[in-house]
This record gives sequence, structure tokens and C-alpha cells, in this order.
Amino acid sequence: MTEQHRPVIRLLPKANARAIRHGFPWVYANEVVADRRTKAIAPGAIAQLQDNDRRPMATVAVNPGSKIFCRVLDRDPEAVVDSDWLIARLRAAFSLRQHLFDAPYYRLVHAEADGLPGLVIDRFGDAAVMQPNAAWADAMCEQIHTALAEVTGVKTVIKNGTGRARGLEGLPEETLVMSGGVDAPLPVPMNGATYMADLMGGQKTGLFFDQRPNHAFAASLSKDAAVLDVFSHVGGFALAALAGGAASALSVDSSAAALELATSGAKAAGLAGRFSTRKGDAFDTLAALAAENAQFDVVICDPPAFAPSKPALEAGLRAYERIARLAAPLVKPGGFLGLCSCSHAADLAKFRGASVRGIGRAGRQAQLIHTGFAGPDHPLMPQLAESGYLKALFFRLLP
Amino acid sequence: MTEQHRPVIRLLPKANARAIRHGFPWVYANEVVADRRTKAIAPGAIAQLQDNDRRPMATVAVNPGSKIFCRVLDRDPEAVVDSDWLIARLRAAFSLRQHLFDAPYYRLVHAEADGLPGLVIDRFGDAAVMQPNAAWADAMCEQIHTALAEVTGVKTVIKNGTGRARGLEGLPEETLVMSGGVDAPLPVPMNGATYMADLMGGQKTGLFFDQRPNHAFAASLSKDAAVLDVFSHVGGFALAALAGGAASALSVDSSAAALELATSGAKAAGLAGRFSTRKGDAFDTLAALAAENAQFDVVICDPPAFAPSKPALEAGLRAYERIARLAAPLVKPGGFLGLCSCSHAADLAKFRGASVRGIGRAGRQAQLIHTGFAGPDHPLMPQLAESGYLKALFFRLLP
Repeated sequence: MTEQHRPVIRLLPKANARAIRHGFPWVYANEVVADRRTKAIAPGAIAQLQDNDRRPMATVAVNPGSKIFCRVLDRDPEAVVDSDWLIARLRAAFSLRQHLFDAPYYRLVHAEADGLPGLVIDRFGDAAVMQPNAAWADAMCEQIHTALAEVTGVKTVIKNGTGRARGLEGLPEETLVMSGGVDAPLPVPMNGATYMADLMGGQKTGLFFDQRPNHAFAASLSKDAAVLDVFSHVGGFALAALAGGAASALSVDSSAAALELATSGAKAAGLAGRFSTRKGDAFDTLAALAAENAQFDVVICDPPAFAPSKPALEAGLRAYERIARLAAPLVKPGGFLGLCSCSHAADLAKFRGASVRGIGRAGRQAQLIHTGFAGPDHPLMPQLAESGYLKALFFRLLP
Repeated sequence: MTEQHRPVIRLLPKANARAIRHGFPWVYANEVVADRRTKAIAPGAIAQLQDNDRRPMATVAVNPGSKIFCRVLDRDPEAVVDSDWLIARLRAAFSLRQHLFDAPYYRLVHAEADGLPGLVIDRFGDAAVMQPNAAWADAMCEQIHTALAEVTGVKTVIKNGTGRARGLEGLPEETLVMSGGVDAPLPVPMNGATYMADLMGGQKTGLFFDQRPNHAFAASLSKDAAVLDVFSHVGGFALAALAGGAASALSVDSSAAALELATSGAKAAGLAGRFSTRKGDAFDTLAALAAENAQFDVVICDPPAFAPSKPALEAGLRAYERIARLAAPLVKPGGFLGLCSCSHAADLAKFRGASVRGIGRAGRQAQLIHTGFAGPDHPLMPQLAESGYLKALFFRLLP
């Protein structure tokens, strides 16, 4: 693409040009001069952002069909977004993860914070799963694929085009193998445990790397403990706790496929003798366990996002409160309760408030001993730090 | 004390009785019926709290000379606060720390969150340092001492009566040995390093246990790294980084005594060959290092509270911004910057904002890779969770 063909997007006077100059990565549709020409720009096209006085500000990706009209790709208004550019961004992201981890299992690219807006890439050894959740990344999928293989050497690349974010960008759902292939769930080492990741059929990209430090904290509490892991997916907290010396762990999930993967992971790490599963709705199972007078030293609840967006906030907070109220009675006196939220809309204070109300309504008193977030392979843009979606609260329920 | 002699404190109608019933631990002076009788109550006396309808609510400790007029000791309005009561509270606190740590070096009692309002006790093996920062705890110092020895078996108990909190309670400054004795700094193992704690002469109780998980996170970034630790005190981040494999660490502090203890700690752990110190004002030293074109892989700044109270907030935030601006140029491209605040008045968002502004003013772009708080031996009351004073932000400065 030559410069003379690059479209220009101009900010309205009311736009927050200062925030963008200070690194805010998004320009909303109501902040730009929208004429027939800009509306006709192809989703994913690269453009130059200018302020209202026509001063060049940045190189952006445009999507006239999204509320996020522009995503800042480069603060250089003349940047050329090509293979070299992609490789440089991927190398910067790769070097951080190489520094952080001994083994190649991590989130390699975490979108805006890694300078690749809307693009998520998880790495599983020789395989990678990319989620191009912005139009520009979807349009450049093949170049990203090539750059990814060059930087990391991965042999298998899967495009996972599912999830809410793509819908907001007007992108279709599709999952396909771009190179290589996988014919079975992959074993993933994390916190001394082994997780089985089904890269083609699982939720999100088959495994959540974001909970790694919270799994580790739960494991540090779990020596000789009886552990209950609710919304366990492929065994996230349960298997880490067993690897950390738990006496037993019970995984609850509504998905038989997820629980099968959890059991495979337990077997692969030689932990199956202390591991059991229970398929069922989490709310129902918590109530059933209480009716059975079951008690655990450590109970963890890691539900899906109950409050993914602002309209869902109030109902979501009630659901978090209900989880806390149902889980607290299952914790032995002096035991631990871990409650997680991956809801963007429920900030830390609101989620903590709902959790504390639920514990109180169960008649228990608590100390908050730890607040955790997503691991360091999920960096945040400082300008978007409020958006840190994952929170994990660990309470000790008083003896 | 017999029940008929226990004074009664009655809430005014405007008091937030509901919050107190839900666990809020304080009653302010403007929330109680204050007559000649209540004003004459001896600081530290135990009383019964009643609502405006004379319904008993809780057993409280009273201090007519403090803005915090009552501190809730027990939700049982008839509770007897004696040795057995103290022992039960200490046992509950002790059992958590025994669960959390392999070695007896930790904060044993963290005030309100451990059901012992205003009382802080740090344990250093066979020795303990208690800070009775509320009038009731100061009045019951001897009973607490006896209970502490019974529950934990510590031989040496030091009363550290310094610090801002005692002034607010109208308590005098005094530091004395209650039993046993220490004639030299004690070696304290933490994160694989050895710290020398001067229990009689140091800041606070001679060592800060609260940064333990943040020291560990910094250490995890520091393999083969050149590390700069500013406001190093007895070597907190520097020694942990060296134990974690740092190539070198430089401690900066204005206290020669603190740096001597840091050097002793480095020697005790066999790390002295990679450790150096520089005595000086932190701001001046950061500027001097920049003038020398010094660069480090990891830079940590852990200053004293720049914003200890609300009136100091704006000046404090400017100081945090200045620290970030002076420290960022010392970080190599792709290196890490850890910024800490122990200011109650600067909440997480405000402190993060000041830090990000400072990094931006230094012309650097950053990813926020980790947000940490005080360790789990510093639990929070859920009702006071906003008051978590310690925050540690770890940024990666882009290559």
C-alpha cells in the first residue's frame, strides 16, 4: 500500500485527542468525521489518524462497522504495517514470555497491551491458537500466521474465530487449521500439573492461561487439603492443588467433555487416585453438597463471566453473591474460599462487595488474604488498566 | 470486671448501625451519645455497645480521646475480654500463619482483620515485636504478652510503641523489652534470602514482611539481571533478586544503618560478591545515576508513604510521579520497573495514574504486567478492604 492511497481519518473537535496522544488506543465512531468516504472504507483497512487541525497523529486500523472506529496500531503516522512490522511486534511480545516462563506454554499476544490491537495468540508448545478479534487482524490473518511461525517456530497454527468480540467487529464465526494439525488434546504443563487442551473443541482456546498465578496461590493453601473446584473446566484449580499436595480434589462442571479432559490430565500427572469429578449445574451441585453436609478445606469457584457487559451487571453481581452464599457453608472452619470473576463489567470493588455479602448471608465471617489478577503474560495497557477483567479473591473463613 | 460495672455506649440515631452489624469494626466519636459519663471512661476500657433503642450490639473497646471512639472486639455483647479471649484470638491468627509459612517469620497479628483491633505483632523466630496501637491493647499489654508467649512459645517480646497510629490514640512513644532480649540483629529467612532485622533500632519493627510476595515477583524477573533497588531499607528487593539469580544488585538508601544491615544480610546468604550499596537521597541518586548513563534490567522503587493521609494526597501523588519519571530512564529497553506505594490515601487507581504519568513524561511506553498487594499474613477485613495500603506495580518498558 503506498502512502497516497492510505485513507485519512480526522478527529472531531470533541474527540479526546489528548488521551490518544497519551496512549489511549481507541477512537470511537462518534469521535471522527464520518462522511460517505470514511463509511466506505473496508473493514480492517490501514489509515492515518489526524487531529481536527489535520496534524497526523498515528497509524490506525479502521472498522466503520464497529463502535471502535479506529484502533491505534502505531504512534508513527507513517508506519507501514507489513510483515516486518508484524514480526517486530511479535518479537517484542515473544521476548517478554521467554523471560517469564521456562516452558513455551503461555499467552503470547494479549491484544492492545502487546501493540497488536484485538489480536490474541496462545501458545501450546509447537502449536498456537490465534484469535483475530479485530477486522484488521482478520484481514491480515495469513501474514500474521507467517510472522508467527517465523518468530516462534510453531508448526501448527489454528485460527479460532469464535466469541463475543468478533461479533462486535462484524466478523463471522469460523475455526480452522491454518497449518499443521492436531488430532488429540495436547498436554500442557503448568504449576506442576498437566492439563489437556483441546485446541479445536474447547472453550476459548482450550485452556485458560490467565489463572496461572491464582492456581499457584490456591495450590499453596492446599497441602493435605480436601479441595472443591467448582466450574472446574479442564481441572484448573483442582489439578494445581493436587500437584501442590492436596489430599483430594473434586471437580464440578456441567461439561462432560471438560471433566474427561480433567481426568486425562490427572492421569497424565499421576494424580488420578486423589481426583474425582461430578457433572452438574454448579448452583445445583453446591446446594446438593450442602445437603450432604460435605465440607472442604479449600473451595474455589471460577464461574464464566456473569456480568460480561454493563446491562448484565446487576444480575451478574447477584449471581456472584449467590455463588458465595452457596459455597461458604461448604468451607470448614478456618478453611479457605476462592472466588473468581472474569467479568469486565464487575470491577474489583463491586465483585468483592457481592462476594462479601454472600459470605455474610451464609452466616460466616471472613478475612481477605489475597487478591490476584491475570498472570504477567496478560499485560495491561496502563491506559486501559481499569479493564483488567480477571479477579480472584481468597478468603479465610474464621474458625 | 463484672457486668454491672461495664459501661454502656449508645449509638446516636444517625450512626450507621447497619454497617456495624455487618461487621464494620469502628464507631466514630460523632456517632455515639457523648455525655459526661462516657467522656470520663478511661481510654482502653471495655464497654457494651448498644443501638439507639438500647439493644446490645457488641463488646467494644472505648477511647474517648480518639476519633475512633469504639473498636468492636467481639460481636457478642457479653463477651469477657480476658486471657482466654486473647488466647483464642491469637490461636486463630497463629493457625493461619502456620498454614501459610514453613518458617516462623511473619506478621502474626494484623489488627482488625485478626479480630484484635489496633494490635500488630510480628514474629521473628523466638522473638516477637508487638505494637499496641490502640488504647485497649496498650492497657492490656501484659496480658497480651503472656498470651502471646503461651500460644507461640516466643522467648523474647519487645513492645514497639512508636509510629503515627499511637499518636492518634493519645498513647506515648516507648520501646521496651518485655521479656528475653536481643543483643544483635536477627537473621530472617525470606524468599531464599537472609535479612538482618534490628528489632530494637529499625524502622517499624525492623523488617517489613508485607512485601514478601512482591519481592518474590521481582526475583522471578531478575535471573541474570542487573537490579537497582531504591529505598532499599535492609535490602528487601535487592537481596531477594540476588537469591533469585540476579547478576548484580545495587541498594540505594539514605540510612547508613539500613545499608549496613543489607550488607550483613548479603554476606549471611553468600551473596555479597554481587551486592553493592550507595548511600544517598533517592531522588538525587536517581538523577545522578541517569547522569552517569547507568542502566539496569530491573529497577524497583519502594518509597516510604508519600501520602500517609488525605491532606498529603496531592503532594504525595506528585512525588510518586517524580519517582517514576526519574526511575524510568534507568531501565534498559525491554526491562522492568517496579513501583510501590504504602500510602493509605493513594488508592490503586490514583497511584497507578501517577506512575503512568511519570513513565510517560520520561518518554517511555509501558505494559503493566503485575499488580501486587501485601502478603496473606496481612489479611484485610472485607469491610475495610479499600484500606489495603500496599500496592506494587510492575511495568515492562517497551523495547
